[in-house]
Amino acid sequence: MKLATIRLNGRTAAVRVEGDSAIETGFADVGELLRAGGLEAAASAEGPRHSFPDADLAPVVPSPGKIVCVGLNYRNHILEMGRELPEYPTLFTKFPEALIGPRDDILLPPESDQVDWEGELAVVVGKTVRRVSIEDAPAAIAGYSVLNDVTMRDHQYRTTQWFQGKSWENSTPFGPVLVTPDEVPGDAQLVTRLDGEEVQHTPIGDLVFGPAELISYLSTIFTLRPGDVIATGTPGGVGHARKPARYLRAGRKLTTTIDGIGELSNVAVDERVR
Amino acid sequence: MKLATIRLNGRTAAVRVEGDSAIETGFADVGELLRAGGLEAAASAEGPRHSFPDADLAPVVPSPGKIVCVGLNYRNHILEMGRELPEYPTLFTKFPEALIGPRDDILLPPESDQVDWEGELAVVVGKTVRRVSIEDAPAAIAGYSVLNDVTMRDHQYRTTQWFQGKSWENSTPFGPVLVTPDEVPGDAQLVTRLDGEEVQHTPIGDLVFGPAELISYLSTIFTLRPGDVIATGTPGGVGHARKPARYLRAGRKLTTTIDGIGELSNVAVDERVR
Repeated sequence: MKLATIRLNGRTAAVRVEGDSAIETGFADVGELLRAGGLEAAASAEGPRHSFPDADLAPVVPSPGKIVCVGLNYRNHILEMGRELPEYPTLFTKFPEALIGPRDDILLPPESDQVDWEGELAVVVGKTVRRVSIEDAPAAIAGYSVLNDVTMRDHQYRTTQWFQGKSWENSTPFGPVLVTPDEVPGDAQLVTRLDGEEVQHTPIGDLVFGPAELISYLSTIFTLRPGDVIATGTPGGVGHARKPARYLRAGRKLTTTIDGIGELSNVAVDERVR
Repeated sequence: MKLATIRLNGRTAAVRVEGDSAIETGFADVGELLRAGGLEAAASAEGPRHSFPDADLAPVVPSPGKIVCVGLNYRNHILEMGRELPEYPTLFTKFPEALIGPRDDILLPPESDQVDWEGELAVVVGKTVRRVSIEDAPAAIAGYSVLNDVTMRDHQYRTTQWFQGKSWENSTPFGPVLVTPDEVPGDAQLVTRLDGEEVQHTPIGDLVFGPAELISYLSTIFTLRPGDVIATGTPGGVGHARKPARYLRAGRKLTTTIDGIGELSNVAVDERVR
């Protein structure tokens, strides 16, 4: 099953996506649907229908209670950099204000000139869990989505803590859909393109800490709840590591795709500040 | 004016504190009060009265939309940790699940044996602001409170990013009251005690980045909203920096006080995990 959050006149609606149809489920967004335990009901809901290709898409979960991001989590990239595989996941956060829809513009704030891409697999939590084992963690996964952890590198490295480069308002595309685990192929490829040029390409199975391990690890620290989001980390190919470095500039189109889930397609635009 | 959130039978209530009286304001908690723009109404509300000394206190803002923490922000703590005065604030976050009331037990999780104290001045946001100047930032401050950013040092230093040591569930006392800015003396002292022994003692005026600067800086990155919380950092005297290092153990009482605001008094207890 594929779910999305669409924008209608002054409201949003969680929809089930079937081919070109977006069928309203009765929930205001996919986060509300998950918090209400509405996955089963959504599978057979028959609300008003819309055209999915023409829909105005919101972030698939517009206001997650938590967004936890993972750094340094792709094996091939770590090894090619000559580093050792980490013993623990590197964790930081972003706030919901950072999220944008899968077709929205990425705002380039005047305060940064090093805005970079980080294509990622996102895991969306479907159950309330604390100290869940790795074995039991898969049952807590509602599904998968695509997120680009767009990062202001200059701010990321102003101090030792990355957070201030990771949570700029209206910077992080998330969607287009939430796909239940049964529909995501294990050998799916994560591909990021800049104006059509492939800049990142890695199988999602190459994660050091996979979705179940991350859910188990995080749930040791705090309760995970339906609608919480884990951005699992980015592979090699970011702009900042290139020689010379490359960054997003106004007019550039960033696309981020995972097989079986879908595509984010976002144009970078200069933010107008009064 | 002093505001608090008290627990009643199965609900909470935002109260105005006058001497020993806690007067209900009609709002469910101080966060809801701020989001509804209810500061003025709260000043004259005359709801049911309770005994404040006997009240069961919740975190003063139980579910902030954002909790941003500042590291290395007291001159003496920066020197203690062996670092230089910073050009930019060091920022990280914690989730609302970490918060406990000002008299609640601090849970010592079995996964950590390095649980440490960090007494802090907390700033609570009262207005929605983006890119507010330092000059205009004070008008966005609803008031001040006390927070102890209790930290699991072993987890803080597992990776370069501190977050996983900063957001353990039921670890962070916050309260007892929100005090409007006019009632907090500029020369107020922040004092942390362990079983009555003074371990931290610093004037809040020793902050490198003060409340107005922090609100201005953060609001450049994202919109700040009523009820958002900024924990402004801790001074010298934390247990991890002592030789030998000292940590919280079961049965120890941690008190954190700021003149004109009040006191957190929390006993550390071993968390029981099934």
